[in-house]
This record gives sequence, C-alpha cells and structure tokens, in this order.
Amino acid sequence: MCKYAIIVAGGKGERMGNHIPKQFLKLNGKPILMHTIEKFHSTFPELKIILALPENQFDFWEELCYKFGFTNIPHEIVAGGKTRFHSVQNALKLVNENGIVAVHDGVRPLVSQHTIINCFKTALQLGNAVPVVDVVDSLRYVNKAENKAVKRACYKIVQTPQCFQTALIKKAYQQDFIEEFTDDASVVEAIGIKIHLVTGNKENIKITSPEDLVIAEDYLTR
Amino acid sequence: MCKYAIIVAGGKGERMGNHIPKQFLKLNGKPILMHTIEKFHSTFPELKIILALPENQFDFWEELCYKFGFTNIPHEIVAGGKTRFHSVQNALKLVNENGIVAVHDGVRPLVSQHTIINCFKTALQLGNAVPVVDVVDSLRYVNKAENKAVKRACYKIVQTPQCFQTALIKKAYQQDFIEEFTDDASVVEAIGIKIHLVTGNKENIKITSPEDLVIAEDYLTR
Repeated sequence: MCKYAIIVAGGKGERMGNHIPKQFLKLNGKPILMHTIEKFHSTFPELKIILALPENQFDFWEELCYKFGFTNIPHEIVAGGKTRFHSVQNALKLVNENGIVAVHDGVRPLVSQHTIINCFKTALQLGNAVPVVDVVDSLRYVNKAENKAVKRACYKIVQTPQCFQTALIKKAYQQDFIEEFTDDASVVEAIGIKIHLVTGNKENIKITSPEDLVIAEDYLTR
Repeated sequence: MCKYAIIVAGGKGERMGNHIPKQFLKLNGKPILMHTIEKFHSTFPELKIILALPENQFDFWEELCYKFGFTNIPHEIVAGGKTRFHSVQNALKLVNENGIVAVHDGVRPLVSQHTIINCFKTALQLGNAVPVVDVVDSLRYVNKAENKAVKRACYKIVQTPQCFQTALIKKAYQQDFIEEFTDDASVVEAIGIKIHLVTGNKENIKITSPEDLVIAEDYLTR
C-alpha cells in the first residue's frame, strides 16, 4: 500500500501585505512550507511527497532549500494550476500506485501527527477521510435578500489533510472544474461518494494573514 | 433618542486554563472588559452602559476598577443569569426610555468605532442591525449520519454589537428561552422580525482562548 501526500502551495502573496508568497513566510525562522513537509515526513518517513507550486516559484524554492539546508526530505515538484483544483489534478499525474493520497494545504503547518495518522487510517478502511472541527461563532445563512440564523452545531469547519483511496480521487478529478469545488471532499462527493469525517486538531489553521502567523508562532512556542 | 449598551460578561473562566474569568484577563496590561467599555464610551460619550456580570464577581470588579483607576466611565451593573439570554433579560429591566439598545460581548474589545456607529445608524433606520463577516474555511453541514459540502459564500459569521429599537428587543425578550437562542438576533428573529446585516470588522474577535489573547494583543500593537 503506497502513501502519497500532495502538498498544495498556490499562494501568490497578495493577501499578506507583502510580496513573499505566504507559503514562504517564516515561522520560527523557517519557511512555513518546510514545517508542513517535515510534519508529514516525520509521521510517515516512507511517504511520497508531491509539492504543487506555481511554476515561477520553482527556482526560489530551490534557493530556499539550499539556504535552509532542507535537502534530506525527497519530494517531487509539479506546476500549480489556475486554481487549487487544477494543481491537485496536475499532481495526481504522479500518483501511479494503489494506496492512499492525502491532499494538504501547504500553509497548514500545525496539523498534528495524530490528525494525519487518523485520516490515513480512516481512508484505508472507508475510502476517504476529512478532518473537521466545530464552529465557535453564531452563523447566519445569507442568500440574496433572505438571511436567517442556522444551528451552528449542525456545521463543521473543514481542514486538511483530506485522504482518499488513489483510484477514487483520480476518478473524481477527471470531472470538469466548477466553482463549488472548494476542497477535495467536494470534488469526490460530486461523483456520489459519501465523505467520512474525522476529528481534526484545533491548531491546524490555514495561515492566510499576518495575524495567523502570530497565532501559529504562539502554538509552536507552547 | 436614548442610546444603551448592554455589555454581557458571563465568563466564569473555565475555558482559559486558569481561574480568572476571561473578561478580567489582561490585554496590554488592563482587563479586557475595560477596553470594551472604553471603546463604547469613546464612540458615544452619552451612551448608557449596563454591565451584566455574575453576581459573585461584583466585588472583584469594584476592586479592579479601583486598582486600574477605571472610575470615569459611569455604568450600571446587573446580575448575570443562567445563560446569556437571561443576562440580557435582566439588563433590559434598566432600559426604560425609547431609543436603541446595543448588546455586546464583554470579550470583544476590538470592535471598531466604525462598526458600532454603523450598527446604531442602521438600527435607527431599519429597527435592527447585526454585524457579520465572511466565512474563510470550507463548511460542511452535518446532521446525524448525513453530511455534505455547503456553499460558504452563503454563510456569514455573526459578531456583536447587535442593535435593536428598544421596544422591539424588550418584546422579543419576553419569550421563553430555547436552546436555539445563541445570540440576540435569533431571539428577535423568533418573533417574526427580519434581521438587517451590516459589515463588521475582522479584528472583532471573541476572546475565548489564550491564543485569542495573543491575536488581540497583536492587533492592538499594530
């Protein structure tokens, strides 16, 4: 059984108030993306890691790996696409053996080993697994002129890694892209597959703003 | 037209990993609750402020006010109830003139003056106003065995201050409490009133964990 991790790092940096794509911003002195890759490698040393990165960042990544001595974790690099969907689609071309594929956001370095193991284990048993956590704020449903309170206990916030049997995810990604595909679960669900939820870890935030970096550093310091 | 703010501070401290109720934890050297009250007072100096606090914290609050020289902002104190609903119900007994009531979480010190003014203005025109912000993560609807991806663009995260014409909110709070009342908008909506949404400010987070305190200090430092 082969294990793959597709790490998607599509950030172009527009939202961080500076010009460094967010996956390269430093967390405790080292690019976020390196923390993420290390977490997966340390959990499963035999894991095949595929990094989807915008093509014009390949050289910069190579420089960073050299500068930070990040040369011990083998990983293949594929060109990111127009959207996250297209990046995953490209990366899946390198998935040629049967097993489990995890798709993970490059800017979620704080995923726990427990979450990763749990997702792989559940996907092996049930075909897929997606980590979720509770919603803490009140939620309202808004559609044009209408808006109404909804029961927040009936909603979950979706994280990554989202894990799937290789044949299943490869089949799902043969579909044409639609706007509703915001994550891999929604793509796989669209071919009629039931998604299985597992409990994620609260710290597993997606770093998309300078405030998130501060939280992440705080988590790492504890 | 009379303006009221009911500041609800019901925290008993169990969730912060220590025994100080969260509204009293220090943010840049001063209890969170003082920041919150100051923000409302500086926005509308004529505002009548009603603080709903667990009865066994009255003395501690008085000590804190003395210690921090927090004696220039007049505010009335009422006993908090079993739930947030019951605290607001108690506080509304002190609302005796026509105008607008804002209900605000004591642990949201980072509400902007712009948000406060916008909510009061809209409530004056339309009867009520509730600040909301976008959902940034993927969401799934979960109900027993069923779960499915939902369009996150159709959901909003609800903040405070939630503002209402006095007659409206007093009428709504005559209802019996049900579990679905997670905020004031849901209470007012239950008597058949349409809720009006205004744009909140992203920093206006509810401080409920040590990580939130770190984010809040970061926001204040900027």
